[in-house]
Amino acid sequence: MATQNNDHRDDVIGRANVEDTPELLAYYDELAEYETGALWTVANKIEPWEPQSASVPVVWRYKQLREHVLRSVELVTPEKAGRRVIYLNNPGRRDVSAAVGWIYAGLQVMNPGETATAHRHSASAIRFIMEGEGAYTVVDGHKMTLGHNDFVLTPNGTWHEHAVEADGTPCIWQDGLDIPLVNALEANFFQVHPDLSEPVAYPVDDMTKTWGNPGLTPGGGDWTKGYSPMFKYEWEPTYEALSKYAEATDGSPFDGVMMDYVNPVTNGPVMQTMGASMQLLRPGEHTKAHRHTGSYLYHVAKGSGHSVINGKRYDWEEKDIFCVPSWAWHEHANGSENEDAVLFCLNDLPVMRSLGLYREEALGDNKGNQPVIGA
Amino acid sequence: MATQNNDHRDDVIGRANVEDTPELLAYYDELAEYETGALWTVANKIEPWEPQSASVPVVWRYKQLREHVLRSVELVTPEKAGRRVIYLNNPGRRDVSAAVGWIYAGLQVMNPGETATAHRHSASAIRFIMEGEGAYTVVDGHKMTLGHNDFVLTPNGTWHEHAVEADGTPCIWQDGLDIPLVNALEANFFQVHPDLSEPVAYPVDDMTKTWGNPGLTPGGGDWTKGYSPMFKYEWEPTYEALSKYAEATDGSPFDGVMMDYVNPVTNGPVMQTMGASMQLLRPGEHTKAHRHTGSYLYHVAKGSGHSVINGKRYDWEEKDIFCVPSWAWHEHANGSENEDAVLFCLNDLPVMRSLGLYREEALGDNKGNQPVIGA
Amino acid sequence: MATQNNDHRDDVIGRANVEDTPELLAYYDELAEYETGALWTVANKIEPWEPQSASVPVVWRYKQLREHVLRSVELVTPEKAGRRVIYLNNPGRRDVSAAVGWIYAGLQVMNPGETATAHRHSASAIRFIMEGEGAYTVVDGHKMTLGHNDFVLTPNGTWHEHAVEADGTPCIWQDGLDIPLVNALEANFFQVHPDLSEPVAYPVDDMTKTWGNPGLTPGGGDWTKGYSPMFKYEWEPTYEALSKYAEATDGSPFDGVMMDYVNPVTNGPVMQTMGASMQLLRPGEHTKAHRHTGSYLYHVAKGSGHSVINGKRYDWEEKDIFCVPSWAWHEHANGSENEDAVLFCLNDLPVMRSLGLYREEALGDNKGNQPVIGA
Amino acid sequence: MATQNNDHRDDVIGRANVEDTPELLAYYDELAEYETGALWTVANKIEPWEPQSASVPVVWRYKQLREHVLRSVELVTPEKAGRRVIYLNNPGRRDVSAAVGWIYAGLQVMNPGETATAHRHSASAIRFIMEGEGAYTVVDGHKMTLGHNDFVLTPNGTWHEHAVEADGTPCIWQDGLDIPLVNALEANFFQVHPDLSEPVAYPVDDMTKTWGNPGLTPGGGDWTKGYSPMFKYEWEPTYEALSKYAEATDGSPFDGVMMDYVNPVTNGPVMQTMGASMQLLRPGEHTKAHRHTGSYLYHVAKGSGHSVINGKRYDWEEKDIFCVPSWAWHEHANGSENEDAVLFCLNDLPVMRSLGLYREEALGDNKGNQPVIGA
Repeated sequence: MATQNNDHRDDVIGRANVEDTPELLAYYDELAEYETGALWTVANKIEPWEPQSASVPVVWRYKQLREHVLRSVELVTPEKAGRRVIYLNNPGRRDVSAAVGWIYAGLQVMNPGETATAHRHSASAIRFIMEGEGAYTVVDGHKMTLGHNDFVLTPNGTWHEHAVEADGTPCIWQDGLDIPLVNALEANFFQVHPDLSEPVAYPVDDMTKTWGNPGLTPGGGDWTKGYSPMFKYEWEPTYEALSKYAEATDGSPFDGVMMDYVNPVTNGPVMQTMGASMQLLRPGEHTKAHRHTGSYLYHVAKGSGHSVINGKRYDWEEKDIFCVPSWAWHEHANGSENEDAVLFCLNDLPVMRSLGLYREEALGDNKGNQPVIGA
Repeated sequence: MATQNNDHRDDVIGRANVEDTPELLAYYDELAEYETGALWTVANKIEPWEPQSASVPVVWRYKQLREHVLRSVELVTPEKAGRRVIYLNNPGRRDVSAAVGWIYAGLQVMNPGETATAHRHSASAIRFIMEGEGAYTVVDGHKMTLGHNDFVLTPNGTWHEHAVEADGTPCIWQDGLDIPLVNALEANFFQVHPDLSEPVAYPVDDMTKTWGNPGLTPGGGDWTKGYSPMFKYEWEPTYEALSKYAEATDGSPFDGVMMDYVNPVTNGPVMQTMGASMQLLRPGEHTKAHRHTGSYLYHVAKGSGHSVINGKRYDWEEKDIFCVPSWAWHEHANGSENEDAVLFCLNDLPVMRSLGLYREEALGDNKGNQPVIGA
Repeated sequence: MATQNNDHRDDVIGRANVEDTPELLAYYDELAEYETGALWTVANKIEPWEPQSASVPVVWRYKQLREHVLRSVELVTPEKAGRRVIYLNNPGRRDVSAAVGWIYAGLQVMNPGETATAHRHSASAIRFIMEGEGAYTVVDGHKMTLGHNDFVLTPNGTWHEHAVEADGTPCIWQDGLDIPLVNALEANFFQVHPDLSEPVAYPVDDMTKTWGNPGLTPGGGDWTKGYSPMFKYEWEPTYEALSKYAEATDGSPFDGVMMDYVNPVTNGPVMQTMGASMQLLRPGEHTKAHRHTGSYLYHVAKGSGHSVINGKRYDWEEKDIFCVPSWAWHEHANGSENEDAVLFCLNDLPVMRSLGLYREEALGDNKGNQPVIGA
Repeated sequence: MATQNNDHRDDVIGRANVEDTPELLAYYDELAEYETGALWTVANKIEPWEPQSASVPVVWRYKQLREHVLRSVELVTPEKAGRRVIYLNNPGRRDVSAAVGWIYAGLQVMNPGETATAHRHSASAIRFIMEGEGAYTVVDGHKMTLGHNDFVLTPNGTWHEHAVEADGTPCIWQDGLDIPLVNALEANFFQVHPDLSEPVAYPVDDMTKTWGNPGLTPGGGDWTKGYSPMFKYEWEPTYEALSKYAEATDGSPFDGVMMDYVNPVTNGPVMQTMGASMQLLRPGEHTKAHRHTGSYLYHVAKGSGHSVINGKRYDWEEKDIFCVPSWAWHEHANGSENEDAVLFCLNDLPVMRSLGLYREEALGDNKGNQPVIGA
């Protein structure tokens, strides 16, 4: 006979609150025979009052990780490993190998002269370049040279391969993918390129030269795919854009001077499952706290400071990565009185918005800042 | 020391194939200290060649379930149970109480004179009416009378309550919700209405009278929400539409004469996370097999027949419910040579499409039909 | 020397008010040599304070016109005339043969057994059927049978031909076209079908059967053209829709119970240059006055009554046609205390909206109704 | 009795070809009494085989016009003239004061320290800066500094005023407006600002700093108006964009390396009635001929060369303006073997596209180039 766990009872009008009885337990057994159950035994569990993220806040410190990333070069060959990547494994998401929510992230390293096998998958990927010279990516025949803090797309379904020129230096970048989400949605396909490599079919960096121009679009240009044709967003124009925008805006109380990377054809997110933004915290700026649905993975592009997440302080410096789980209170502070701090952010906001699930709340108490636990 | 499971090795170029060594196991332990891991130990697992659905095909037979549904009325009170619902519990999805994929479904029963507490949640819901007289739903103040095979929406964020008029009969309907998905996305909120009930604020059935007219929209009508303003789709005009469309089309080789329920403002899906369609199989029709991403839950609105899912035959008759998991081969057959068979279908296609993950494949072998196992 | 007309002077700050002088007149002559002029000589003329329509209100009475329309059958052959049409020639728009603004309209007659030559043009056309049995239209191979008060599209660029079955009766319908607009925009092309006729390629009335269903769209249906795929909107379902909608709405204070004909794929106008609506005035209803940009041509589909346009009363009865010029005050009154009155309306609202030029104003004085001149 | 002009007869099947007879002329008289006419008397005129533009090609040479523009400063005061503008008066469009088609253009001059009265109108305007220092425009409170070849919007309905700083120099720019179109559509409204001037309410150039960034949009930025929020498009980044794009494309056979100015929110035209583009002809480049619907007004931003329009050669140099009427064959040639030539173009393409009237044709004969008359 079933030993029903009725630990989901809730003594509130409109909620389930049914005590187990022998008769009910027998009934539950019968229901199980037909692959069914009684809703009131699980209703309160599957209809929570508000989101309880499985993810926990983590800061991954580059200072600590860098040597381990480099060591992977000695430990495994690209042939055996496919790619040499140390992935960020959120303690609450180990079952799906996610850094936060449904987002996977890792630090990949590649030596000069190495080339990864060309492949494609339904998962979408981004790269954010951390160090090294000579890295490049080829996406559907478009070759892109990669520099410090450049942001690059390898969207859903595109053939792509990564490499470092023979005269380059060891290169490290952050990979970000929606693999956990696409797996959960049972929609992931993976293919290795039949030739293991793909030919470069266009002038180098042509997509950025064609689509990355302010207020101008290529005449007769036609692009209807679900992702941005501007595969690479370089750091210099991005930082310049933030600096110009900073002259024209007070910024967001929660995020400082923030800009979203966009598909220039739609002004919407760069890909359908992942969005990205870059935000500048002015010297000494400390933002107000808010929370929203959606999982966020921050990468410190410039400067240092700290964030307060669900009442706990997390310090960060350049190249560190940290996460903010869904519906967690968070606020950011630039630690310098003289320099900008700039945060790159990868998130699943496009999913929240496409599905009508985005929700946001400002902290009203305490002048908008969280009391810090232990502070 | 870690006992690494390297059971995800794959001896194919471009895939991970790293053997455990003491040195690597030590390395994996170090990585774990920093909440990280080595991608090549999980890469093949998280990047499968194609989707492997956790769900299994099931037919829930109304003949078997009806008495159990009715018995719940005797076993629990609405006050204690919240709602008296027997939910469909797919053997592969018991952890999330889903009928298939990320879709929850149940059979709800309500007696004359009963009213459920008004509430709202981020999850979206549909109802498909199975039997009884006098049921009605109120959605954001719009009251709708419900009849056999009517399809009704209670979208994300709307206040709603269900009831049966005092002079009605016991009513049973299918509920369908995206609760598992919204929970997984960590975006579910739940509220009981402060007054436990909501007032009826508009003429009865006004939304269908306003928005449910062929080729005509209310003058000055303005609707920008993410879901259809036509909250109720009645059976008679739906069946008439199918019959008319059948005169104008050969139909789909895979789905017969199929129409999608739409938001009349966008011609897109009725809600952002769930779609629905109704398909008519002509007398004697047996469709070809195809497979696609997305999870499907069928409800037999009329007639009888069978489906072949991943090579196995499943018979169904009126009011039965059955599921087709993501990427499962499937084909349908009307069992009658004289009567139409009509299938109502609830699915997560809007999620697949919004996120760029829809993919479809026709079966090329065997003239497009699956060999049936054991047949 | 130029005799400058300086009758456009306006003694208001910010307006041009330059007196002719000999020196200026000489200057104007020099400018003319280079195909230029001085803006201040025409500025006030080309920048009016508000629109002054060239069109005047007219009622075309079917009682008067019918016999003349029928007489054209005796007077000219279809071979010589192309089509036998009496067009509505607004006194203010004779230069462009328009009924109002940039809209052309005419009454066409066709005898049983006659067929017009198939042709196409960049101008878009509508037909509204007035009397007779057996008329049909073929649009891009889709044949449509036509009945009383049916509304039919022959959009921009589609091959079309009109005919009456041999066993029919003489048929009269209203044609409406954007010919004057498309000519003014220098974008009109005209072609006679190389075979003079086009084959019927689909089941009769297939487009209405496929696309004219409330809240349902054909599965896999794909339509991206700029006009509605639902080529025919029949009178019965239209009148039924108005009647149902009347139960759910108070209606517009200016237009009664009004519904717009829409492209079901976009919920927008049926064509890019012309819109249409149908409005029901309840027994005894007399609407408030408003005015807006855009030209309107009304056709009395049912009942009788009057409209007040720019302060003058215009009576109308079934099958009469009347126009309201851009920015003219107008209000409508049903003349019956027992019967509905229903007005079909053809307009250029899609042009106004697409170009950002729509503007509307309610009459505030006199409780919202115009004083009637001479009343 | 009417003296019918039957000069529109056309002896082609499907066209009208009715000879006047006394009986018909009497009939025409009767029709005229009811404000109607017989279609066959005008059908061929109003349904031409293809567009016949009323506009003629013209080159307005800056060398000739500049002194006349400057002289207007001596001849009229801003108070009397409103604005000192010499407008381009196409010989075929004098009735509507248009430069080509429905586009008005003029050369405006303003002295240091002068300010024009703030006003707004339903017509949309652009400015293209030709010479001088210190000019600025204020649009809805947003002040923009203006430099050589900058392109600026003053959209439909926005308050705007133009001025030159007291320490500037005399400034000349091209104005372009859709006044003739908006008048023809009977939708033009004009208002002088109640305070004659509008306050500057934002940081200088804030809209360009906010919206003019490649691949980045302001976080939380929300813009739903029908025109671009990027009111100013500066010359330097535009020319840089063309140069970069030139590295990535072969260019169009008809237009060289062409980019369209866009509303960054939609990637569509900057305003709903007028579009603009900038095209670079490489040294020695001579394009192929094509024709399309829509009226084009070119302004030579850099370099010199010639265009062939409907078989006639028109030479141009920097700051010259020339027009290409609708459906006129045209091709362009850079006159230099060493320098780029760059053409700014203002057009009504958004109207053509919104209304479904765009049509294009390449010249097939003579290897794609027109024989030049008299060459």
